Amino acid sequence: MLPADAKVVSVDDHIIEHANVWQDRLATKWRERGPLVRHEDGIPVWHYDGKRYPPLGLDAVAGDDPTEFKLDSKKFEAMRPGCYDPKHRLEDMDTDGIWASLAFPQFPRFAGQTFLEGADHELGLACVQAWNDFVLDEWCATDPARLIPLSIVPMWSPALCASEIERTAERGARAITFSENPAALGLPSFWSEEWDPMLSALEETDTALCLHIGSSSRPIIPHADSPTPLIISLMSLLTMATLSDLVMSPVFIEHPRLKVILAEGGIGWVPYMLERLEQVWEKHRHYAKVNVAKTPAECFRDNVWVCFIRDEAGLAARHEIGVDKILFEADYPHSDTMWPNSRAGLERALQDVPDDEARLIAGDNARRLLRIP
Amino acid sequence: MLPADAKVVSVDDHIIEHANVWQDRLATKWRERGPLVRHEDGIPVWHYDGKRYPPLGLDAVAGDDPTEFKLDSKKFEAMRPGCYDPKHRLEDMDTDGIWASLAFPQFPRFAGQTFLEGADHELGLACVQAWNDFVLDEWCATDPARLIPLSIVPMWSPALCASEIERTAERGARAITFSENPAALGLPSFWSEEWDPMLSALEETDTALCLHIGSSSRPIIPHADSPTPLIISLMSLLTMATLSDLVMSPVFIEHPRLKVILAEGGIGWVPYMLERLEQVWEKHRHYAKVNVAKTPAECFRDNVWVCFIRDEAGLAARHEIGVDKILFEADYPHSDTMWPNSRAGLERALQDVPDDEARLIAGDNARRLLRIP
Repeated sequence: MLPADAKVVSVDDHIIEHANVWQDRLATKWRERGPLVRHEDGIPVWHYDGKRYPPLGLDAVAGDDPTEFKLDSKKFEAMRPGCYDPKHRLEDMDTDGIWASLAFPQFPRFAGQTFLEGADHELGLACVQAWNDFVLDEWCATDPARLIPLSIVPMWSPALCASEIERTAERGARAITFSENPAALGLPSFWSEEWDPMLSALEETDTALCLHIGSSSRPIIPHADSPTPLIISLMSLLTMATLSDLVMSPVFIEHPRLKVILAEGGIGWVPYMLERLEQVWEKHRHYAKVNVAKTPAECFRDNVWVCFIRDEAGLAARHEIGVDKILFEADYPHSDTMWPNSRAGLERALQDVPDDEARLIAGDNARRLLRIP
Repeated sequence: MLPADAKVVSVDDHIIEHANVWQDRLATKWRERGPLVRHEDGIPVWHYDGKRYPPLGLDAVAGDDPTEFKLDSKKFEAMRPGCYDPKHRLEDMDTDGIWASLAFPQFPRFAGQTFLEGADHELGLACVQAWNDFVLDEWCATDPARLIPLSIVPMWSPALCASEIERTAERGARAITFSENPAALGLPSFWSEEWDPMLSALEETDTALCLHIGSSSRPIIPHADSPTPLIISLMSLLTMATLSDLVMSPVFIEHPRLKVILAEGGIGWVPYMLERLEQVWEKHRHYAKVNVAKTPAECFRDNVWVCFIRDEAGLAARHEIGVDKILFEADYPHSDTMWPNSRAGLERALQDVPDDEARLIAGDNARRLLRIP
């Protein structure tokens, strides 16, 4: 059972950026071309690099009745202010029973893909740095003990990624968000040595590498008739593919201190997937180019953490996964959030789990991993 | 523990067709254009419709040492005769401790895609029927109690599929093999009413619908650097997608007596996936076009069976999956087979499982489902 004094940490929430994040920060020469919001029939639509980015209604539904869920975009006024205002976010975290939160970007997308896709990468770097400064100076500065900084990186250049990791780590960032499958974005795969400068910078600064579902921009869509709930249900398959990809690759052999957090992919499938990876590695590594220095399960044990919102199957299998490898997510304000009942839901899920294990899963694993005081 | 008198049924083995399967059976007018083997440096290469189909070495490795596994094609003489000769197959089943076997096609591919891709579908139908007649009259006729007939269907026409299901069911077939994702082959998805004649024929003849990994011809390949063991490890994700697709769709509402066997997709992920499907269905069905008459888990319970070769995670979670929903596979002669230790491996896996449950999983579920005496 989760003790009453245990602090719950969510390693996966989402900031809906307010309209002036970039306009407030970009140098004059960039400002006009930087991201800005135009209200279209009251809907805040982002514009950048000649493209329109209408927001998805499902991305700001904390507290909404699911029978009212819509795919359509939503006005700022229809969202809870906790979506875009850090003071209100802290109040909503109090209501939800969440002590600390690591939050991902929204308009830049989960890995900052928006600035990778933009044609001008000099402008892109300025936009990446502006978001990181917004997170450090405005969002997290509101309560540095509870709002934990996560950075985005200029994905088109591993050397620039390394510099930005060093710059933001020095200012307090504990994690970056990156793509679960960079090759899907036209970048080298994790098998390429090109990422070495970035991965080494993560090791040297003790910064976690968060890989969030959807950060490949390539959801699994079985066919043209696939409805949204089917596509949502299959998002965690991308996490399974990412885990498999990484533990077969040389990444953890070359970067033994790397800490990977697989965000929003669930945990209940982990024992199956590790067992399957061990079987295939055992029989098939002899003719193929895969990591042979450690087994897939050993790589997982040493370098990977997995995350859940609601996952009875995973909590039942927590000893097979590793009680120290599991992190909790509130996913505020996206459609999977249990807000305002995240802590209550977590307590219910942990009611048959011994106190010391419940403490680890609810917060202490995340606090150790992300150096949260 | 599995009682010594329990008969083990494998619902997933593979026939390596001998060179004369089609030449022996096709009408004279088709024979010259039907599938035939040309030996190239001793390797039996199939030729059909102007295309070469070299066999994959990993598809006939029963008994081989995994350190000797190769992707290269293999000569008939280098294979165990049990690969292509039903008398030897029965001997290899005896050695392996397997009582009965349901076997899939090899050259036609897991769903008979080869004949779908061929330009001439009149010839294709003749080839489909020739394979089915080979299975009924030659392969399974060798021991009808132990070799259970499975048919392929002319996938390009639901009406012809229905006729072939009726024709072969009357002659003893208990299952067909079909695509886990027909849309990936350019056919309508399972959401289309076009499949109704085929699905109704399956219901009316009490014939099971086997959907084998790989039968979409669309493996998950995360990027160009993906080695074969990574691609193999991700095959079961296709089964997860198929299960999710079917239980969200109207298929089981419209065809409540349909029996689907998800072949070679494993079982350890099932509790996680069902829980996730329930969560998404609960929150997201209101704005989307999905089946609302039954929950995804109810559809699974009533209409779907899952299969394993080695799967400790799945056997540990057997009560969450349903002890009556689990079937065993020997996968002879593919690379996952435990031959000659299938029964020994299964006994080890079931050593802590109560006898009555072990009997169901090892064979009785399959015997009931496929009407094996």
